[in-house]
Amino acid sequence: MVTGASPDEVKAVVDRAKSLGFTVQLNEGTDKKVIAVLGSNTGQTQTGVFEVLPSVESVTRIMKPYKLASREFKTKDTTVACGGVKIGGNQIIVIAGPCAVETREQMLQIAGQVKASGASIMRGGAFKPRTSPFSFQGLAKTGLELLAEAREQCGLPFATEVVDPHDVALVAETADILQIGSRNMQNYALLTSAGKGNRPIILKRGFACTITEWLTAADYLLAEGNKNVILCERGIRTFEDSVRFSLDIAAIPVLKKASHLPVIVDPSHAAGHYSLVPAISKAAVAAGADGLLIEVHPNPKEALVDGAQSLTPVAFEKLMKELRPIAESVGRTI
Amino acid sequence: MVTGASPDEVKAVVDRAKSLGFTVQLNEGTDKKVIAVLGSNTGQTQTGVFEVLPSVESVTRIMKPYKLASREFKTKDTTVACGGVKIGGNQIIVIAGPCAVETREQMLQIAGQVKASGASIMRGGAFKPRTSPFSFQGLAKTGLELLAEAREQCGLPFATEVVDPHDVALVAETADILQIGSRNMQNYALLTSAGKGNRPIILKRGFACTITEWLTAADYLLAEGNKNVILCERGIRTFEDSVRFSLDIAAIPVLKKASHLPVIVDPSHAAGHYSLVPAISKAAVAAGADGLLIEVHPNPKEALVDGAQSLTPVAFEKLMKELRPIAESVGRTI
Amino acid sequence: MVTGASPDEVKAVVDRAKSLGFTVQLNEGTDKKVIAVLGSNTGQTQTGVFEVLPSVESVTRIMKPYKLASREFKTKDTTVACGGVKIGGNQIIVIAGPCAVETREQMLQIAGQVKASGASIMRGGAFKPRTSPFSFQGLAKTGLELLAEAREQCGLPFATEVVDPHDVALVAETADILQIGSRNMQNYALLTSAGKGNRPIILKRGFACTITEWLTAADYLLAEGNKNVILCERGIRTFEDSVRFSLDIAAIPVLKKASHLPVIVDPSHAAGHYSLVPAISKAAVAAGADGLLIEVHPNPKEALVDGAQSLTPVAFEKLMKELRPIAESVGRTI
Amino acid sequence: MVTGASPDEVKAVVDRAKSLGFTVQLNEGTDKKVIAVLGSNTGQTQTGVFEVLPSVESVTRIMKPYKLASREFKTKDTTVACGGVKIGGNQIIVIAGPCAVETREQMLQIAGQVKASGASIMRGGAFKPRTSPFSFQGLAKTGLELLAEAREQCGLPFATEVVDPHDVALVAETADILQIGSRNMQNYALLTSAGKGNRPIILKRGFACTITEWLTAADYLLAEGNKNVILCERGIRTFEDSVRFSLDIAAIPVLKKASHLPVIVDPSHAAGHYSLVPAISKAAVAAGADGLLIEVHPNPKEALVDGAQSLTPVAFEKLMKELRPIAESVGRTI
Repeated sequence: MVTGASPDEVKAVVDRAKSLGFTVQLNEGTDKKVIAVLGSNTGQTQTGVFEVLPSVESVTRIMKPYKLASREFKTKDTTVACGGVKIGGNQIIVIAGPCAVETREQMLQIAGQVKASGASIMRGGAFKPRTSPFSFQGLAKTGLELLAEAREQCGLPFATEVVDPHDVALVAETADILQIGSRNMQNYALLTSAGKGNRPIILKRGFACTITEWLTAADYLLAEGNKNVILCERGIRTFEDSVRFSLDIAAIPVLKKASHLPVIVDPSHAAGHYSLVPAISKAAVAAGADGLLIEVHPNPKEALVDGAQSLTPVAFEKLMKELRPIAESVGRTI
Repeated sequence: MVTGASPDEVKAVVDRAKSLGFTVQLNEGTDKKVIAVLGSNTGQTQTGVFEVLPSVESVTRIMKPYKLASREFKTKDTTVACGGVKIGGNQIIVIAGPCAVETREQMLQIAGQVKASGASIMRGGAFKPRTSPFSFQGLAKTGLELLAEAREQCGLPFATEVVDPHDVALVAETADILQIGSRNMQNYALLTSAGKGNRPIILKRGFACTITEWLTAADYLLAEGNKNVILCERGIRTFEDSVRFSLDIAAIPVLKKASHLPVIVDPSHAAGHYSLVPAISKAAVAAGADGLLIEVHPNPKEALVDGAQSLTPVAFEKLMKELRPIAESVGRTI
Repeated sequence: MVTGASPDEVKAVVDRAKSLGFTVQLNEGTDKKVIAVLGSNTGQTQTGVFEVLPSVESVTRIMKPYKLASREFKTKDTTVACGGVKIGGNQIIVIAGPCAVETREQMLQIAGQVKASGASIMRGGAFKPRTSPFSFQGLAKTGLELLAEAREQCGLPFATEVVDPHDVALVAETADILQIGSRNMQNYALLTSAGKGNRPIILKRGFACTITEWLTAADYLLAEGNKNVILCERGIRTFEDSVRFSLDIAAIPVLKKASHLPVIVDPSHAAGHYSLVPAISKAAVAAGADGLLIEVHPNPKEALVDGAQSLTPVAFEKLMKELRPIAESVGRTI
Repeated sequence: MVTGASPDEVKAVVDRAKSLGFTVQLNEGTDKKVIAVLGSNTGQTQTGVFEVLPSVESVTRIMKPYKLASREFKTKDTTVACGGVKIGGNQIIVIAGPCAVETREQMLQIAGQVKASGASIMRGGAFKPRTSPFSFQGLAKTGLELLAEAREQCGLPFATEVVDPHDVALVAETADILQIGSRNMQNYALLTSAGKGNRPIILKRGFACTITEWLTAADYLLAEGNKNVILCERGIRTFEDSVRFSLDIAAIPVLKKASHLPVIVDPSHAAGHYSLVPAISKAAVAAGADGLLIEVHPNPKEALVDGAQSLTPVAFEKLMKELRPIAESVGRTI
C-alpha cells in the first residue's frame, strides 16, 4: 500500500482477497503496509484485481502464473517419445532439414543426407507463416506428402509446422511432431487445438515473450491433455542488429530449473546467417540443451526461403562431428 | 562485398540478381565494392538470396517490404467509414467500452455511458485471447449478441476482436469493426481470412514488431482486397518495468509519413494502469492520432479482465472534456 | 522459499535479516513460505544478500532503492530556479540551441533567434561526448566563453554538458545549468562531483535505464547536497529502427507520481530526425512535461553535429506557436 | 531519395558529398534514385549530414564507423600479454576473484584458492561503480594495495576496474590489467585517458550497446595508442526478467568475424545468480571465447557486493574441471 493508506483502504484489499477465497496476512513495515495474499490459485489471479483498488501502490506476484509446466508440479524430467527416438533423455537429438519443402527431389535428397550425418529427426515446412503476402507460402498438403515419402524412404520421423487451428488434425495425421512457430506462441486458438491431440509438439518461444509467458503457453497445451511438449529457444528480439535474433543461452539453465519439459535450440533462426550456426549450436549443447533444430538445405543458394541461415550438407556433417566431443564433455551422446 | 572479394564472387552476385529479373550497378569505393540491385520488386525479395553468396558482407534493403500500405503507393489519406462515422478524417474518433463483455447489464449500461460522454464507437471483447488457460475466456457468440443489443439501444457501432480465422465470417456478420489483437498481428491465417471480407479492421501492432513489419502485415489485409484497415499503436515491449508496455508515441508521425492508413492509439493496454491513461491519451491526440481506443468499465473493481487499466465512466467523461481543447489545438474535433 | 524448503533454511534467512537489523514476518501460503523482511532501509539492501541463501526461490523488492528523489520523501513538487526562470512551475520552459557550439557567429545568431521565438534558456555543447574518436569533439573552454558571450548579449541563461568529473568546477563557474548526458547517467564519479555544487543539473535518462535506476542516479546528486535536479527523458533503446530512440511518453506521468522533481523532454535526440520533433514536442506538453530541450541550428545542413535532428529557426518559431494552445489546454503557459 | 525527388534535390546531395571529398555514383531504380557516396572515410561521417537534406528518404551506412578494431584493418588475431599470460592465444584464460576487495584475509585466501583451481589471473574491485549512493563504494587505494599483496603472495597478475579518468595513472601503476565497466563503455573521458597508457584494458560491453558501438568504443582506446584491448561480453538488457542481463552468446562468433581483438565472457554479471554461471561458462567456451571472467568469493553469503552471483571456491573448482574437456573439444587448453 502507498505510505499513508487509510485503514479502510487496507480493509478493502483484505476483503477483496477474502472474497476470492484467499487468506491474508498483514506485514507492517516502518514505512509501508504489505498485504500478503495466500492461497493455492494466486498464480492464476490477475494482479489487476488488486491494482485497481485505492492506495494500492503495486502488486507483486510470488506464485508463477503457470502450473502444469512447472518443475514443482512434476519433479522428474519429461521425455517425449517419437518414432523410436526419445527427446529429453541422455541422447541429444538433432532435427535437421530445409526451412520449406520445395520439391520431391530436394526433400528426398536432404533426408538421406541429414540421416547419414547423424540427425534423428527430419524437418521441413509445408505450411509457412511468411511475413510478406508476396513471398512463397509453402506447398501445404503436397508438402506433407513429400515429407511422408521422405520418411518412408530414409526412416526418420519428421517435424513440421502447423499455423491454422483447423489444420491441426490434418497435419497430425501425417506428421510425427507438430511445430508451433514463434509468431504463434500466443495464438490461443491454435494452442487449444494442438493440445487436444497427443502428437508431440515443439513449442517455439515467442520472440518477445518471457520465459514465464512461454511456460504459461505450454500450460495451454498441457491443460488440454497433451503431455508431449518440447520447448524450443530460437532467439529473442533485442536492440542488437548484427544477428536476426539474440539467442538467449541462459534460457537453457533457467528452464531446466523451472520446468520438467525438454528444451531444444534452433540456432538457425536466431543467427539468421549460416556462419554463426556452428558456434551457437556448440554453445547450446554445452549449456545443456536436449536437442538442436538446424536448417540444412541441399543448395542454400537456390533455397526459396531462408537460404542465408541454412547449412549445406557438408557443413552440417562437419558440425555434427564437432558436436560429438562437446556432448561427451557434458556426459551425453548425440 | 567484403574487402578483397574476387571478381568471380562479384560476378556471382550480379548473375543471381539478373536471374531474378533485376538490373545491377556496381559502385566501386576505395575499400569496398557495393552492388546496387535495382528493380520494382526488390522490396519483396528476401535479402538472404544474396547473403548466402560467398564474400557478401551484408545486404541492405532500400525498398520497404510493404507496398500497398505505403504512402508512395497511395498518396492521399485513407478514411474508413463505419456506421456513419469516418476514421481518419478531421474528427478524432474515440472507441470506448469494457475489455470483455461480461453481462447484459454491464454492456447496456456502459454503452449508454460512453455514448453520453462522446464516444463514437463501442468496444467489448467476446472472444478473448488470454495468456493463461485458467483465465476467463470470454462469452463468445453470446457476447456478440449482447454487443448487438447494446448497439440497437444506444445507436453506436461496435468493434470486437476475432482470434480464430474460422470465426471471421461469424464475427463480421454482426460486428461493425473487427479487431486483430497484438498477439495475432503475424497470424497470417487470420490476416488472410479477415482480408477477404470488407469489414473495417483494426490491426493492432505486435508488441515486439517494428513499424515496417506492421505495415507488411497490413499488406496482407490489403492484398486480399480489404481496404478498410486502421492501425492501432498499443505499446511495445521494452526493458522498462513501470508500465505494462511502452507506448511508442513517435510511431504516430512515423506512420503518417510512411503510410496512408488511419492511426489510432490504445492507451489502456500500453499503460496497464488507469492512472496513466489520461496523460497518454492527451499525448496521442497532440501527436496527431486519428482516434483512441479506451477501456471503460462501469465498475473496474469487479471487472473480470484488465480492471486495473479501465477508466470509470466518471473518469472517462472527465478525460473526454480534457481532450477537446487539445484536439482543437491541433485543428481537429473530437 | 522454494516449495519444500526446510525449517533450517527458513531460519537461515530469518537470521540473516535480523543480523542486518530488520524485523521479519513469516507468511505461510498453501504451497510456499514467503518471508517478509521489514525495516526502513530495505530499499538500500541488495537482494543478493538473500538470493545467495539455500532454498531461496526469489527475492522481490517492495521498497524502491531510491529515497531522496521520491515523492514519499518530499510530497511537494520541486521547482528549480535559474537566471530568473523557474523550472517545474506553471510555465513550461523551452531550452533551445545547437547541439554543439561551433563558432561565435553561429552561437550569437541562434541565441537571438531562439529568444525571439520564446525560448527561456539557451543550450549549446562545449564538451561533446562523441561515439567515434574521429568526430568533432567540441570547442571545450572556448565554447563556454562563446556561450557566456551569447548570454551577455541576449539575456538568456544557458545549459551545457559536462563529461569529466574534473571539469565540473570549471563548467559550473560559467554555466547556469549543467547537463549530464544519457551515456553518463551512471557515471558515478561525475554524479558525485556534480552533486557537490549547487548549480542546477539536467540529468538525462540513460538510454537503457529504467525509471527506478534513473531516480536512483538522481539520489546520488541529492545525497551530495545538490537539490536542483531536473530529469530529462530523451528516448530509450528498443528494437524499433525507424527512430534513433523511442521516446517513453509514459515516463512523464510515471515520474510525476513517483518523484517530486521537474521533468523535461528532449524530442530531438529521441527522434533523430527534425521531421518528428514537432509531434513529439506536442505530445510531451500534453502529457504534462515541465519543459522541452530542443535542438535548433541556424543552418542544420552545415551543422558539425546532429544536423538531421535540428530544427531551423523558422521551424522552431512555428513549433513554439503550435505549442502555446496545447500548453493552455493543460492549464499552463509556455 | 523519396520517390519523385527533383533533379535539384538530387544535385544538392551529390554536391554535399563532393564537398566532403567523396565521389558519387547514381543508381536509378524503377521507383527510386539511390545515391552511392564513396570514399575511404565514409564510416566516420555522420549520416545526418545527408538526412538533413530535402527529399532524402534515408541514409544507410555501408562502411562501419569503427576502423582500428576491425578485422579488415588488421587480419591477424591480436594477443594481449600480461604477466606471463597471453590472452587471445590457444589457451583459454580464466580470470577469477571477488566482485569487491573487502579485507586482506578475504583477498589473500581467495587468490590462493582460484590459483589452485587453475585461474590465470585474479580479479577484485577496489573502485566500485555502485548504482546506489548508499551502497559500499569500495576500498579504493587500500584495495589496490591488498591486490598487490595477494599478487606478491600467489603469483597471479590481477585485473581491476577504473572508474574516474583521473585515477587511470594511479591504478595503472599497480594493476596488471585495467577494466572499464559496462556503464563506462561510452565514458569518453575515461576511454581517452586509459588509451594513453599501454596497460592491457578489458573493455566491457555497454549493457545496451550494439557490437558496432562497442568496437567504436574500442577504437577510442586504439586511436590513443593502446593496442592491448580485450573485449568482454557481459550480457545485454532485454525484456527477459529471469536473469539480470541476457548473455549475447552470438556476440562471440560475430566479434571473431568483425574484429581481431580477443573476446572474453563474464557469466557472473549476466546471470546475476550463481546457479546459472556454470552453464553459461561452458557455452562461452564452446562458442569460442578466449577467456572467462568469473566472480568467486570465499564466502558468498557474507559478500558485501554481488554475493548472489559469486561461486564458492568449491563450485569454482568443479566448474574448472568441467570446462577442461569442453576446451579440448574445441581444440584449446584452459
